[in-house]
Amino acid sequence: MSDTNHVWRLRKRPVGELSDDVLSYESEAIPEPAEGECLFRLNYLSLDPTNRIWMSDMDQYMPPVELGAPMRGVVCGTVVKSRSPAFKEGEVVSGLGVWADYQVGAPGMINPLGDTGPVPVIDAFGTFAVVGPTAYFGLLDIGDPQPGETVVVSAAAGAVGSIVGQIAKIKGCRAVGLAGSDDKCRWITEELGFDAAINYKTEDVPAALAKACPDGIDVYFDNVGGDILDACLKLMNFKGRIPTCGLISQYNATEPPPGPMNYPMILMQRLKVQGFIVLDYAERYPEAIADLSKWMGEGRIKIRQDVVDGLENALQTLKKLYTGANTGKLMIRVKDV
Amino acid sequence: MSDTNHVWRLRKRPVGELSDDVLSYESEAIPEPAEGECLFRLNYLSLDPTNRIWMSDMDQYMPPVELGAPMRGVVCGTVVKSRSPAFKEGEVVSGLGVWADYQVGAPGMINPLGDTGPVPVIDAFGTFAVVGPTAYFGLLDIGDPQPGETVVVSAAAGAVGSIVGQIAKIKGCRAVGLAGSDDKCRWITEELGFDAAINYKTEDVPAALAKACPDGIDVYFDNVGGDILDACLKLMNFKGRIPTCGLISQYNATEPPPGPMNYPMILMQRLKVQGFIVLDYAERYPEAIADLSKWMGEGRIKIRQDVVDGLENALQTLKKLYTGANTGKLMIRVKDV
Repeated sequence: MSDTNHVWRLRKRPVGELSDDVLSYESEAIPEPAEGECLFRLNYLSLDPTNRIWMSDMDQYMPPVELGAPMRGVVCGTVVKSRSPAFKEGEVVSGLGVWADYQVGAPGMINPLGDTGPVPVIDAFGTFAVVGPTAYFGLLDIGDPQPGETVVVSAAAGAVGSIVGQIAKIKGCRAVGLAGSDDKCRWITEELGFDAAINYKTEDVPAALAKACPDGIDVYFDNVGGDILDACLKLMNFKGRIPTCGLISQYNATEPPPGPMNYPMILMQRLKVQGFIVLDYAERYPEAIADLSKWMGEGRIKIRQDVVDGLENALQTLKKLYTGANTGKLMIRVKDV
Repeated sequence: MSDTNHVWRLRKRPVGELSDDVLSYESEAIPEPAEGECLFRLNYLSLDPTNRIWMSDMDQYMPPVELGAPMRGVVCGTVVKSRSPAFKEGEVVSGLGVWADYQVGAPGMINPLGDTGPVPVIDAFGTFAVVGPTAYFGLLDIGDPQPGETVVVSAAAGAVGSIVGQIAKIKGCRAVGLAGSDDKCRWITEELGFDAAINYKTEDVPAALAKACPDGIDVYFDNVGGDILDACLKLMNFKGRIPTCGLISQYNATEPPPGPMNYPMILMQRLKVQGFIVLDYAERYPEAIADLSKWMGEGRIKIRQDVVDGLENALQTLKKLYTGANTGKLMIRVKDV
């Protein structure tokens, strides 16, 4: 164990695009676990769109990170010292931690990852910790897609979106994805089996959506909000469903952007728009992991990870999420396990 | 039977506020019922916010009224000639008809009103045809209010809103209403039993709402959209519900207004926003009518009707809905029954 810890701390609430001074990267002492806690060393740090929310003081679903406090993140690590019967030294754990090499964890927030079978730890963590269950419960529990229906997903080459489209196909739906480059569009149609893809940066989105969804949209899995939400609202079918998973198009806005112009479609078409956070489904995780593992084993769900080495690169890497520079699950690797 | 019929016909799609030339009032021949239809004479014409939608060609839940066609409306009349076993001469019928003294109706669209017991026909039609079931199903089926929760309703002195608040009280909730005058506010608190009322025309709505809802809002029954929706979104509790019944604040807009700024609260608080139209619940009407009749009989639901005589006054009277000049159910009376 080295003597020095590295910790990212929140220094400023972000305004507009993430700047380099919102977090600072500090060398600090390694903390001591209290009774009931463990000390673990970071293997992987998940980078997620919601990180930007936690840095801000906008209304949100958990208290924002306090100024000066370590940045919050979904982490995977290896226990180096345990003062709790819940953790064994050398065991791999994951959960809600902080952006730090060494950190303490208590049961509930940090839990053993368990046996991942033939699936490498990095894939299991990358897929099962956040994005897989997010796609699974948002689409199936709120979206309730029926065979033959049309499911549209934004940020479709992202970690969540790419899984949403593949589950939609497994459920017998037409899957249409919006992504930000021709490469991404090719990947989701040619490799992942989406029926159609729209490059939202180069195409006329309303026209392309109308063409890709000749029977309208039954489920729109919303990762982005903004103009794409508006274009989808316009095409929603009677009693359509909109699971609201993210609104990444507006997280970097300096002024609150207006809501969707086509909001009245909620009334006209009797839509259901419902927000969710994957943590709401914590108790049902095993259900998602069982199905996802099976589908991954059968080759029906393919995942792609976008892995960057080095905790010191976390902030620069996080920025990729908001410019669409990543494909698949974005994470920092400190040390493979 | 007089020889002349009077019919309101749609002449222009409305732009902005309703103008006098959107409809014309014509003297015409009385139509002849075809086989399977009846001819009936109008007793009461219900005036509803949605009339403005039917005149427009905005995206909507039924085909808009065609230019030149008779204006659509919810009607109550007396059968004068029947060519269907479904209708008896002299019988009172109601349903979806047109703004005309004499008109033909077919089963399905027009149905016998049935025995209204001790309730006068005008009250039964005014409460049970549209507004009662709208309040009932929107609040109970989508809003699902639990005892002790806070229910907020906009247009609370309107026909639907006044019933929503009273049902909320019956269900053990705190009921808070927004209305457009001090008289209306007094009526809903002093006579209808709302816990608090806010005059949205004179008070600071966000501040007044925060004060009236110290525990936040669990159900916001939305009749209006716009700024009031935004103010309510800001105060919604975790897993709150927003039945979307109407968006009257924007029906007269000439440009599509922006959607709610606080749309991200749907995600942050995991809200459910769901649109509905009372026609979706047509099969379950008896359920609503049974409960509403019982509550009205017990004096737990009070209704107020705003009745104007003369079909020729229909268009001028309809305008009252969009300026908030009515209190309770607005309707035209041609002839009592």
